[in-house]
Amino acid sequence: MNALKHLFGIAELDREQIEYLVNLGDSFIDINRRPLKKAPTLRGKTVINLFFENSTRTRTSFELAGKRLSADVINISASTSATKKGESLLDTGMTLAAMQPHVLVIRHSLAGTCQFLADYLPNTALVNAGDGAHEHPTQILTDLLTLKQVWGSPAGKVITIVGDIAHSRVARSHLLAARKLGYTMRVVAPKTLLPAQIERYGCEVYHDFDAALPGSDAVYMLRVQTERLTDNCAFPSVREYHEAYGLNARRLKAAGSDCIVMHPGPMNRGVEIATDVADSVKSHVLQQVEHGVAVRMAVLTALCGGQTEEKKGPASSKKQLADEAMQAQRTLL
Amino acid sequence: MNALKHLFGIAELDREQIEYLVNLGDSFIDINRRPLKKAPTLRGKTVINLFFENSTRTRTSFELAGKRLSADVINISASTSATKKGESLLDTGMTLAAMQPHVLVIRHSLAGTCQFLADYLPNTALVNAGDGAHEHPTQILTDLLTLKQVWGSPAGKVITIVGDIAHSRVARSHLLAARKLGYTMRVVAPKTLLPAQIERYGCEVYHDFDAALPGSDAVYMLRVQTERLTDNCAFPSVREYHEAYGLNARRLKAAGSDCIVMHPGPMNRGVEIATDVADSVKSHVLQQVEHGVAVRMAVLTALCGGQTEEKKGPASSKKQLADEAMQAQRTLL
Amino acid sequence: MNALKHLFGIAELDREQIEYLVNLGDSFIDINRRPLKKAPTLRGKTVINLFFENSTRTRTSFELAGKRLSADVINISASTSATKKGESLLDTGMTLAAMQPHVLVIRHSLAGTCQFLADYLPNTALVNAGDGAHEHPTQILTDLLTLKQVWGSPAGKVITIVGDIAHSRVARSHLLAARKLGYTMRVVAPKTLLPAQIERYGCEVYHDFDAALPGSDAVYMLRVQTERLTDNCAFPSVREYHEAYGLNARRLKAAGSDCIVMHPGPMNRGVEIATDVADSVKSHVLQQVEHGVAVRMAVLTALCGGQTEEKKGPASSKKQLADEAMQAQRTLL
Repeated sequence: MNALKHLFGIAELDREQIEYLVNLGDSFIDINRRPLKKAPTLRGKTVINLFFENSTRTRTSFELAGKRLSADVINISASTSATKKGESLLDTGMTLAAMQPHVLVIRHSLAGTCQFLADYLPNTALVNAGDGAHEHPTQILTDLLTLKQVWGSPAGKVITIVGDIAHSRVARSHLLAARKLGYTMRVVAPKTLLPAQIERYGCEVYHDFDAALPGSDAVYMLRVQTERLTDNCAFPSVREYHEAYGLNARRLKAAGSDCIVMHPGPMNRGVEIATDVADSVKSHVLQQVEHGVAVRMAVLTALCGGQTEEKKGPASSKKQLADEAMQAQRTLL
Repeated sequence: MNALKHLFGIAELDREQIEYLVNLGDSFIDINRRPLKKAPTLRGKTVINLFFENSTRTRTSFELAGKRLSADVINISASTSATKKGESLLDTGMTLAAMQPHVLVIRHSLAGTCQFLADYLPNTALVNAGDGAHEHPTQILTDLLTLKQVWGSPAGKVITIVGDIAHSRVARSHLLAARKLGYTMRVVAPKTLLPAQIERYGCEVYHDFDAALPGSDAVYMLRVQTERLTDNCAFPSVREYHEAYGLNARRLKAAGSDCIVMHPGPMNRGVEIATDVADSVKSHVLQQVEHGVAVRMAVLTALCGGQTEEKKGPASSKKQLADEAMQAQRTLL
Repeated sequence: MNALKHLFGIAELDREQIEYLVNLGDSFIDINRRPLKKAPTLRGKTVINLFFENSTRTRTSFELAGKRLSADVINISASTSATKKGESLLDTGMTLAAMQPHVLVIRHSLAGTCQFLADYLPNTALVNAGDGAHEHPTQILTDLLTLKQVWGSPAGKVITIVGDIAHSRVARSHLLAARKLGYTMRVVAPKTLLPAQIERYGCEVYHDFDAALPGSDAVYMLRVQTERLTDNCAFPSVREYHEAYGLNARRLKAAGSDCIVMHPGPMNRGVEIATDVADSVKSHVLQQVEHGVAVRMAVLTALCGGQTEEKKGPASSKKQLADEAMQAQRTLL
């Protein structure tokens, strides 16, 4: 397997790397489905969370992941950042890299932020925690870990994703992952919420939610920004959106008894998802949150294992990483 | 003693539990009156501070308490929270609980936030760090530890509390504690700052501060929100409030030579308390701050000890907790 | 050497103390120019960063320095502070000191904040992280470490500092350090950006940047607040400022082949510094950032070593501190 230097997006990962990260994440959850609470794996490593957009859930998940592995974690939010004083993104990145963190986790509204910075920060592993409408790879790895626990493998399954596909990095990353791992994505949205040439991703496209339900193994609801609905989509109200594209109990039933429900959160109850569906036993929304910490522990471990610090070899060889995961599993602080 | 699962308020605690927490807090202060600096008691435990209202003092106190006990502490402030995106309180709570912290410390403007959430978060210990005008239990435990060091026991003593009783969670929690521990609360306020049916708490009610002073063992001044004064109370100015309900040197003298001064902070010097009184040797305001850390260490220890994590028995038996406190005392990292 | 109790400014340090802190900082960087990642030196110590002004770079640098030395670090930003509720600076300081941190790092817009607080906080070491236009001592120590690595010693060298000298704490601290360490400061600015009686610092004063370049060993560019330019200085535009006082490639060449470039950051590219100069091999801007962490580790070590906590002697004797630095060097967690 090629060693991981950065985590830009699903696009840059091959199948083996995706499965490796998902499996490594799985190894951080014990047999009683409880996550590992503390391991010394990343002691002496520094992780900086640099968030130019607010995200309690993703930032907290990375912070917890780093701390459970004994890393030093530093949070920087855009509102207190030097960008307010007119510093460029590149200067902010180079300044933080000069403080020699091992991993820089970045959320930014611009697509390709990590790729842009990577050319200038040769000694820092970069993790994309969401870049505009581009990619959100740790969310997809989280989802894949959740699906692994339900299905074993996603290969051959059908995931129906519903909502504002055009502006969703989660949708885009899943479309990329689906082709690598052999599952089918059905996208469901009004035309105004679909990107141009969506077909090039090899997905099935529906404008009618009800028509897309039969045969779905999972229904994946996307958060809808209500202001976007009325501005761009000619939906006269949130209620009309809910009627047309919201997941309610009737639709969930139509999807079949084994169909599960997913959502990356935060949920708009009553908009894209009815509250009884969100709380039903078929909903895996909270499992996604739980697995998010484990997957981010895996990502941090893989990236730090790939560094040459402290006399380690240059490789994040599979065996070395697996050993580290095993060690993390066994060694409670 | 009944094991503690949550800390909702003084209302839910019996006398034995209150005294246990105060004594446990006391054990975290050494014989030279210096707090314990570091113990491994909560290593591997995660504490999330979820603050929907700003409070430097309370948040910092909990953060320090957690870190001194080697817990991983995560801070989340409302301003960066997903609630901005319209997520419900319950979804925020369930999301954070899915990340499997051991303790969730919550400050919220709504009374009963913790009780509400507890039904949905079976595996997370909840601590009320102030909920609207309802309760602020760790402040009262802090005060009781301060009083223990001065008086030994509060039983039979008279605490005169002055100010905006109607909107004060501190006042309300003290009124509840007084009946459990056998001390007397005198409340002093204009009628507009008293809740309806204040007498049901079994306290003495005064509208004239000077009349309440003789026989007081402690005078407990509450912070006054000056905008509330002129809006609701027909006080033409802050200065008139200070004349009627502020603690000055003359009044402190009238209360007797052993009477001490308390305030939960932050103080409005010149409003509810004169600056020479705030800084006098009779003032225990800074001791309250200091003891706040120790008491919060006790609360976190008691709640984490009560969990079944890591093969521990279900009980936070008195002996087990005492052992842990002793261990924390002895074992510096 | 006199033990350090606080770090107020360069004014309060003698030459031996400055050199000690710079050398101690240097000892935290290994032979491969990589900073120490983790040492147990400050385990059990608490550092509070109290920032009344935003500064990602300085706050992060102190936070990293504390965490790499295993201290517990607490961040408090002004925007969430009790000062919003009208608490005085002194009460905020006394409240935090009552929680018994070992070090309180303070950034404030008022000159002399630390000196003011020190009289009231006898048991807390105070570090000035920038106080108005007064001093910024850790920045100067950082610069001196950078210069030590380039020059060995700054004695006899000429540093030409350019920009808004009147409002710059960095300029002021360098002017003080220059006389103690025997280097020459050339200040370059229009009269409107110079303080009255600048000559009393014993520096050379230029209004013409080009005339100041020959013989400069370092050119130190200050950040310019563009709104200040047009308001006070009669510069019709940022571009005119750049023409008159910006460092471009032509000027850098005129300064001589060994002249280096420094900037405390964040940089305004195209205003006080051209982008090719900022990124040239002569620029030591990122080294300054890197050394900032090491120097702040030195400051925290020196101040904590000076405390009597935990049965240590009262002195931060040179030997004791040197031993601690050696221990930190050797002992990876």
